[in-house]
Amino acid sequence: MNRDGERGKVLLSVTGFDPAAWHDALKQAAPQRDIVLRADKAGDPDITYAVVWKQPPGVLRDLPNLRAVFSIGAGVDHIFSGDEVPDVPIVRVVADDLTERMSEYVVWQVLDHHRKGPLYREQQSKTIWHEVRMQPAAKEVSVGILGLGTLGRDAANKLRMLGFKVAGWSRTPKQMEGVQTYAGRSGLDEFLAVSDVVVCLLPLTQETHGILSASFFEKMKRHGALGAPVLINAGRGGLQVETDIIEALDAGRLGAVTLDVFQTEPLPADSSLWRHPNITITPHCAATSDPRALVPPMVAQMDAHDAGKPLVNLVDREAGY
Amino acid sequence: MNRDGERGKVLLSVTGFDPAAWHDALKQAAPQRDIVLRADKAGDPDITYAVVWKQPPGVLRDLPNLRAVFSIGAGVDHIFSGDEVPDVPIVRVVADDLTERMSEYVVWQVLDHHRKGPLYREQQSKTIWHEVRMQPAAKEVSVGILGLGTLGRDAANKLRMLGFKVAGWSRTPKQMEGVQTYAGRSGLDEFLAVSDVVVCLLPLTQETHGILSASFFEKMKRHGALGAPVLINAGRGGLQVETDIIEALDAGRLGAVTLDVFQTEPLPADSSLWRHPNITITPHCAATSDPRALVPPMVAQMDAHDAGKPLVNLVDREAGY
Ligand SMILES: NC(=O)c1ccc[n+]([C@@H]2O[C@H](COP(=O)([O-])OP(=O)(O)OC[C@H]3O[C@@H](n4cnc5c(N)ncnc54)[C@H](OP(=O)(O)O)[C@@H]3O)[C@@H](O)[C@H]2O)c1
Ligand SMILES: NC(=O)c1ccc[n+]([C@@H]2O[C@H](COP(=O)([O-])OP(=O)(O)OC[C@H]3O[C@@H](n4cnc5c(N)ncnc54)[C@H](OP(=O)(O)O)[C@@H]3O)[C@@H](O)[C@H]2O)c1
Repeated sequence: MNRDGERGKVLLSVTGFDPAAWHDALKQAAPQRDIVLRADKAGDPDITYAVVWKQPPGVLRDLPNLRAVFSIGAGVDHIFSGDEVPDVPIVRVVADDLTERMSEYVVWQVLDHHRKGPLYREQQSKTIWHEVRMQPAAKEVSVGILGLGTLGRDAANKLRMLGFKVAGWSRTPKQMEGVQTYAGRSGLDEFLAVSDVVVCLLPLTQETHGILSASFFEKMKRHGALGAPVLINAGRGGLQVETDIIEALDAGRLGAVTLDVFQTEPLPADSSLWRHPNITITPHCAATSDPRALVPPMVAQMDAHDAGKPLVNLVDREAGY
Repeated sequence: MNRDGERGKVLLSVTGFDPAAWHDALKQAAPQRDIVLRADKAGDPDITYAVVWKQPPGVLRDLPNLRAVFSIGAGVDHIFSGDEVPDVPIVRVVADDLTERMSEYVVWQVLDHHRKGPLYREQQSKTIWHEVRMQPAAKEVSVGILGLGTLGRDAANKLRMLGFKVAGWSRTPKQMEGVQTYAGRSGLDEFLAVSDVVVCLLPLTQETHGILSASFFEKMKRHGALGAPVLINAGRGGLQVETDIIEALDAGRLGAVTLDVFQTEPLPADSSLWRHPNITITPHCAATSDPRALVPPMVAQMDAHDAGKPLVNLVDREAGY
């Protein structure tokens, strides 16, 4: 073990939720490190690592011995959205626990649309017993996944295993067993033409910002296995244009939508998304970062890095994810 | 091919739904066979096979050349529930199409409870943004499956693949990779003690009739990963005692219930199940028998049997399934 690591402080800087569980988990996993919620003094030379979620402006500035920033989530847009981020490595979450939770969510929501959850719940509320006959089987339905990264690939495999046809779209070309893959802007139209359900698991970057908009919905399959196409966004709210979603639903270009993420979170009470009959809303809970699962490998990375080993799961600043 | 097969008639006898799609599929798959909806005359010697769903009383009587009865579903309680069934082989449905549809349903409903679908939908209806923190991951939740037959085994594998712990209960002892198995009445208590969610995929027989009753609910896990235990019944309505389900929900012994099947179907409009806040109702649609998928192998069995080959997927009359 190395001397610096022993005396290094970890800055835990979070907004939007209570960091207590993270604080506890860090103390437990790194008893020799001091966990602080803010720098005691500007330019604190003892802070060697920062663990952040939407850190307030300025908190990462002037930390002369900062060695790396750890994101509390898989996405890192929250780190970049504030002010300048110091030129140290940024580590994001790649963990089975998070990946599996996201796949639970994706499979759940795909099945809820595929198996007509909204319709059957409405029928129950009206005491209507009516089976939809000639319901397509999973093998007759194509699910297209935007983003074939850690999360997209696992969701793709689990949907395949349930029998769905699966397509995927990424920035750089990818090969995946049993998945029809498309890449780049030029591959998007073809991807949308084959997908009955589109699941968005993209990171929010300059390139992907606002991608889920009217022109995207126009290119979606018109008469799919489930009727009008279904959209599920569990990536980030900034990927979607909410007014365009409502217009596309009302025009019948979209059949139904599930949103876990929103342009503004918490979703404001006056947003018409809340009350739209064809929108399912969940409060950014698709894949919660669970400190019990995520902190131990984070601390293991700090220890390894202090011992001279390379960090893994680094963010490409240029690409923004 | 054999001569009898060529001139044999197939009796298609169905109540409760329109048999048109089955009639068409049979005509298409067996163009050389005559498909009739009722016997032209008592004791019609030309009828060699019957394809039935809840056949009306008497229709299988006095058919001197009947060689086998084919059930339109995986379950055969509907065949036995009427009058005496002639002493010919009874073939039930075992088909990937049906199995996969059931697993879609089971996974969908397990995830809907696991991921708090009812709560999040209620929150949406009230414009409440509130994430349930410290949500258990699938690996922290045990799903117990009653019935490890064709349907139970496939559902078990798919739930495992999503990360759930899986237990299973059957009449005779079974071994299954990654599944904790229990058998017989003596194994039931232990099975119930480990299961946070119980999924019933049993056949309805004299032994299983009314098994989902107060004494069963009393033995279920008290404080499971999801709080009070969850029950999902997609087997048959006769397996459940509906008044006991409502009492157990109201007493907090059950946390939530999904029912696809009912003691009386269609579920009567005045049943209080419809309006219970913790019951999800679907209209016996968990795994529909799709004639496009099921008729060709059925006809292939008739042809093979006429050619002297043995029938497969036979029902054990003694066991009742
Ligand atoms: N709602 C929630 O609770 C929740 C929880 C966790 C994560 N998330 C979101 O999920 C996102 C994905 O996570 P991940 O771990 O799967 O990320 P990842 O491993 O970095 O994968 C990102 C995928 O998106 C693709 N992509 C990026 N920019 C693109 C572009 N311009 N055009 C086409 N494809 C593009 C990438 O393409 P390449 O393969 O070519 O690089 C990659 O396949 C996170 O960024 C976060 O926003 C949400
Ligand atoms: N809701 C729907 O849409 C729908 C659709 C299709 C089927 N179903 C229902 O699903 C049922 C199961 O279908 P399947 O194809 O899986 O049947 P299966 O292959 O015959 O399996 C039945 C399973 O139940 C077990 N079992 C039977 N009696 C038992 C008892 N007394 N105690 C403990 N276990 C017992 C069997 O034990 P052993 O392994 O020891 O024999 C077997 O594991 C059907 O009978 C039907 O009622 C419902």
